[in-house]
Amino acid sequence: MTSLSHLIREVEADILSYQFPQEPRNLYDPLRYFFGLGGKRLRPVLTLMTAESFAAKGENARYAAIAVELFHNFSLIHDDIMDEAPYRRGKETVHTKWNQHIGILSGDVLFVKAYESLAKCDHKYLPTLLNLFNKTATEVCEGQQMDMDFENSVDVYEEEYIEMIRLKTSVLLGCAMQFGGIIADVNQKTQDALYNFGQYIGIAFQIKDDLLDLFGEEAKVGKQIGGDVLSDKKTLLSIKAKELGCDMFEISNTTDIKLRVELAQQQFEKVGAKKYVEAAMNDYYKRAIQTLEALPRSQKEIYEEFAEFLVKRSY
Amino acid sequence: MTSLSHLIREVEADILSYQFPQEPRNLYDPLRYFFGLGGKRLRPVLTLMTAESFAAKGENARYAAIAVELFHNFSLIHDDIMDEAPYRRGKETVHTKWNQHIGILSGDVLFVKAYESLAKCDHKYLPTLLNLFNKTATEVCEGQQMDMDFENSVDVYEEEYIEMIRLKTSVLLGCAMQFGGIIADVNQKTQDALYNFGQYIGIAFQIKDDLLDLFGEEAKVGKQIGGDVLSDKKTLLSIKAKELGCDMFEISNTTDIKLRVELAQQQFEKVGAKKYVEAAMNDYYKRAIQTLEALPRSQKEIYEEFAEFLVKRSY
Repeated sequence: MTSLSHLIREVEADILSYQFPQEPRNLYDPLRYFFGLGGKRLRPVLTLMTAESFAAKGENARYAAIAVELFHNFSLIHDDIMDEAPYRRGKETVHTKWNQHIGILSGDVLFVKAYESLAKCDHKYLPTLLNLFNKTATEVCEGQQMDMDFENSVDVYEEEYIEMIRLKTSVLLGCAMQFGGIIADVNQKTQDALYNFGQYIGIAFQIKDDLLDLFGEEAKVGKQIGGDVLSDKKTLLSIKAKELGCDMFEISNTTDIKLRVELAQQQFEKVGAKKYVEAAMNDYYKRAIQTLEALPRSQKEIYEEFAEFLVKRSY
Repeated sequence: MTSLSHLIREVEADILSYQFPQEPRNLYDPLRYFFGLGGKRLRPVLTLMTAESFAAKGENARYAAIAVELFHNFSLIHDDIMDEAPYRRGKETVHTKWNQHIGILSGDVLFVKAYESLAKCDHKYLPTLLNLFNKTATEVCEGQQMDMDFENSVDVYEEEYIEMIRLKTSVLLGCAMQFGGIIADVNQKTQDALYNFGQYIGIAFQIKDDLLDLFGEEAKVGKQIGGDVLSDKKTLLSIKAKELGCDMFEISNTTDIKLRVELAQQQFEKVGAKKYVEAAMNDYYKRAIQTLEALPRSQKEIYEEFAEFLVKRSY
């Protein structure tokens, strides 16, 4: 079995050698730029890893993996507009460097490119891949809408938040893994296990992201710590902190940015929100590991390694 | 053969019975609203018409037709944002009635719904349909980018303009017709003829739109006459008028809106731009009719009727 770091390099090479058309420049330059910003490439790695562990043949895994990564990047470009985010990975977002209209349109064409890559897979897999991809893409949009709706909600419940991150983030990890299974001709039961594993680690992954946003180290995370608190974003941390009696107004009303972040760190820890959220993350991590029961023993290891990496990472 | 008006009613019924999910409301309400605004439904009618004239079987034509219409509406919702258009068909555009972010996201999910409808077609047609759809969707984005780029160009040449409307508008008409041919199992030569017919009448159709924008009757066209002139939009009319020596500055600098439109009407007619553009439209109309040579005589009539309707319409 190829190592995780080798698979990441393989995906990165595929992404970097991916050729967008030259013209119109204002449509494709932003995409070349965006892919140059890098990224963890987790999703395509999941597809390759799964395909390889079940001995899939041919180039299908690469096409499906690239489709997932292109789709993910499309959703990031559009989300950045909707979240009005000026930076991603320390560089200007597409709509900041160019403009909103170019962000919309280059995102749109990138979405098409995702389907184009998927369409390169063997025809016998195409209907199944396409149906799963469509279902997933729909859910990702629904999750993003829920996230936007939360901005205007006074209270968001834990279950709603989990459902939002399941849709916005996790289903694509599930899809990425099931893609690997589909093109390796595994049975439905195994496909379901792969999907569920992806989904559970996806939720754990997002909760980890929320934790890193407030409790991570700036140098490692690669962005300003406390962004969520500073923009009053609802995350499992803030939802739970409020529920546990933390004075959210005191935090919001602290004008000094550094103090506000520190106060949130102290308060969220004091009321037990941090501990609760860490436990929730571990719970989803464990559920992910449990779904591996359905798989042959030999395949489990690399998935376990991956899951552990996701919840223990410091970036 | 079913009549054109009957096909239009059939498509309209399919569109109106199309069910979007209920939740999230802010994602799907805009789509219910937008489809309620109506439209000419030309593109899906082309698919149904072609499929029927070549005796395609089953429900494939309806799924493919709906896919084309869903895609078209997705592109309109996003174009309206990029063109900053407050109204469409006399009603508020999605981003005006809701907001830009909702316009982006509901457009995105509509794009997925287009692929979802296409995926319902018989699996044996799916790879071919999907490849054509991806190619077409890419070109539509490229055409929209060219159109946006034109806003910042001092001079646009006739050939560039025709290429822009070919990509932005016509390829989708070609695709709609070829879809009908594919699911009717026609040979490649006939598919090409259908595609080219769609493409040529698409160009004629767009030129007719430009003509109606300045020389149509407000009550029939259903929008303010002279919109293109008032927003200094480059169209074949303005490109040709400028080339033929029309004083574009005099028109742009006329502050009174009514006078500006009247001046453009007079000047464009006087320098011969109107005549030239009408001739160009008729030329593409004729090219479309010529591609029908490749088809059996019995099938030609309804296509001819359709082409004539497009160039002679007053709305």
